[in-house]
Amino acid sequence: MGGDHAPGPEVAGAVAAAREAPVEVILVGDESRLRAELSRIGAAHTPRVHIRHATEVVTMDDTPAQAFRKKRDSSMRVAFDLVAAGQASAVVSAGNSGAMLSHALFVLGRSPGVERPGIVTVFPTPTGTLVLCDMGANVEVKPSMLAQFGVLGACYDQVVHGHARPRVGLLSNGTEASKGTELTRAADALLQRAAAHPEASFQYLGYIEGSHLLTGEVDVVATDGFTGNVLLKATEGMAEALLRMIKSALMRSLRGRLGGAIIRPVLEELRRSIDYAETGGALLAGVPGVVTICHGRSDVTAIKNAIKVSHRFARASLPQRLGAAIARHQGLWQDAAAADPLG
Amino acid sequence: MGGDHAPGPEVAGAVAAAREAPVEVILVGDESRLRAELSRIGAAHTPRVHIRHATEVVTMDDTPAQAFRKKRDSSMRVAFDLVAAGQASAVVSAGNSGAMLSHALFVLGRSPGVERPGIVTVFPTPTGTLVLCDMGANVEVKPSMLAQFGVLGACYDQVVHGHARPRVGLLSNGTEASKGTELTRAADALLQRAAAHPEASFQYLGYIEGSHLLTGEVDVVATDGFTGNVLLKATEGMAEALLRMIKSALMRSLRGRLGGAIIRPVLEELRRSIDYAETGGALLAGVPGVVTICHGRSDVTAIKNAIKVSHRFARASLPQRLGAAIARHQGLWQDAAAADPLG
Repeated sequence: MGGDHAPGPEVAGAVAAAREAPVEVILVGDESRLRAELSRIGAAHTPRVHIRHATEVVTMDDTPAQAFRKKRDSSMRVAFDLVAAGQASAVVSAGNSGAMLSHALFVLGRSPGVERPGIVTVFPTPTGTLVLCDMGANVEVKPSMLAQFGVLGACYDQVVHGHARPRVGLLSNGTEASKGTELTRAADALLQRAAAHPEASFQYLGYIEGSHLLTGEVDVVATDGFTGNVLLKATEGMAEALLRMIKSALMRSLRGRLGGAIIRPVLEELRRSIDYAETGGALLAGVPGVVTICHGRSDVTAIKNAIKVSHRFARASLPQRLGAAIARHQGLWQDAAAADPLG
Repeated sequence: MGGDHAPGPEVAGAVAAAREAPVEVILVGDESRLRAELSRIGAAHTPRVHIRHATEVVTMDDTPAQAFRKKRDSSMRVAFDLVAAGQASAVVSAGNSGAMLSHALFVLGRSPGVERPGIVTVFPTPTGTLVLCDMGANVEVKPSMLAQFGVLGACYDQVVHGHARPRVGLLSNGTEASKGTELTRAADALLQRAAAHPEASFQYLGYIEGSHLLTGEVDVVATDGFTGNVLLKATEGMAEALLRMIKSALMRSLRGRLGGAIIRPVLEELRRSIDYAETGGALLAGVPGVVTICHGRSDVTAIKNAIKVSHRFARASLPQRLGAAIARHQGLWQDAAAADPLG
């Protein structure tokens, strides 16, 4: 109920997902509004689409803590309660993402050994995908959290993209060991140790620069949520700006307008392929349940894909496997906590 | 002498600059190699191109401190000494950028009141330019340094792009005051106070997200050198990846190949317009002299443009005006140093 255009895209997206995949969807929110919306789109009796009533809504203006403490019967809270009670496997929402995080932490808790859950985002690249963790859940982190984002991202990449030994990098301002900050240097040492573990299921490449993210030489990049969020939004903005610049350059000449008309369908397809709506939402990794955070402005396609992807994640036991990946390096995190140079 | 392909592009770039603009260029380095290179390109007697001999070269492997302490007669050191002695107005180099920074600090020092010089980069946008400071000189900063990067960037934008009251933003992971880090929140408060100064020559917009950098709503963005460097390189990488994706999408169909052949010249022109080589190097702001840091792989065009731009900066007294912009808020920096929450 908390997305920018809720509950329209949510209801239509749920119906579309339930038609395309064997997924049971529980719409959580004001029952009469949800029923009305289902009827409006001629989907009142869609198999596998259920409704669970909730009286309140977390808005974009609610602070994460307030939303959790004061709105005990919000659609977000009820959805998380369903997962905590084992009545659902995943929460998908286009609502307040800070509140999604606080609900995940307070209702589901963290998987054992996880210091802070991180948000995983997937970028399309010319040759495949790039997994980035954390893209915004934690703006101030410790070295062990940063190293855990690398381990969580690697496990995600392995399960979701099928890479046997994902190549993991740590985002920095240069590749030399002298580069980076106190934080990245300490995290680098931890990731080196984690990758040296006999049961480690990833390779660690060390520092990766911004210019090498999309070249296909790395599968997973760990960074703090501040840098990750800036990076994600800046590259989205750059892609949009570049497409606008191409369009306006083409409009300036007859030759350009002619060629532009010919290639328009190709560019449109490319735009769709790199659009967030096609990949659905972002996973909150490190909690015992699938939590998928969608853009507030998600449309029907984005919601549909987020539901289908969440269903796939739940069937693959992704939360359990992410927890196991962190548990594999248990001693490392304990040593790191004892020796944390940043306190 | 320290660029990736030195001294070829440096010599040819200097000759081209001296032919196109009324600039006197002193080539600093091994005299016989420089003379040979000038002869090789048929430019042995180019007016306004001079040579100053230096026996050593700072390499990309030298640490910034070593380069300064051990290579007293490097081409970089001699060039900085010329500026310190008033015999030159600007240093332009495609050599080791960390060493450029250490030489600037040790030979020229900081302009009065400047805590840390910052590197200014200019991004092309669909509607103009975006000035970013710092793009890599300082990876760990204090709030007052971050605020100074905003003031330096604003002054640069005013002098170089002619904006009467540049709109300055502080890069963050969201626009709400609760977003950002302890560092950005403290810098935000300082920039608000600086912009409220009766003689302030910029407007302060507060937090800016990565997605709003290239939309034309902001002229200048302040950030720390770690985030700035990651951002700069990631957006460059994204632009390259996107152009590659467009090219390969076009190659997949006859229609695409036809349209692609027609628009190729338009895309090539666009690529040139957003290429670093066209805009020359990046300015180190906050030192008493023009210091222009070029990509190690700079070609003739990049060097030529960096020299012409540096000449323009020197004639506009840009270093003095940057120093005056910082001095205007003198009390603010002193208060900030006294009250720095990060120590």
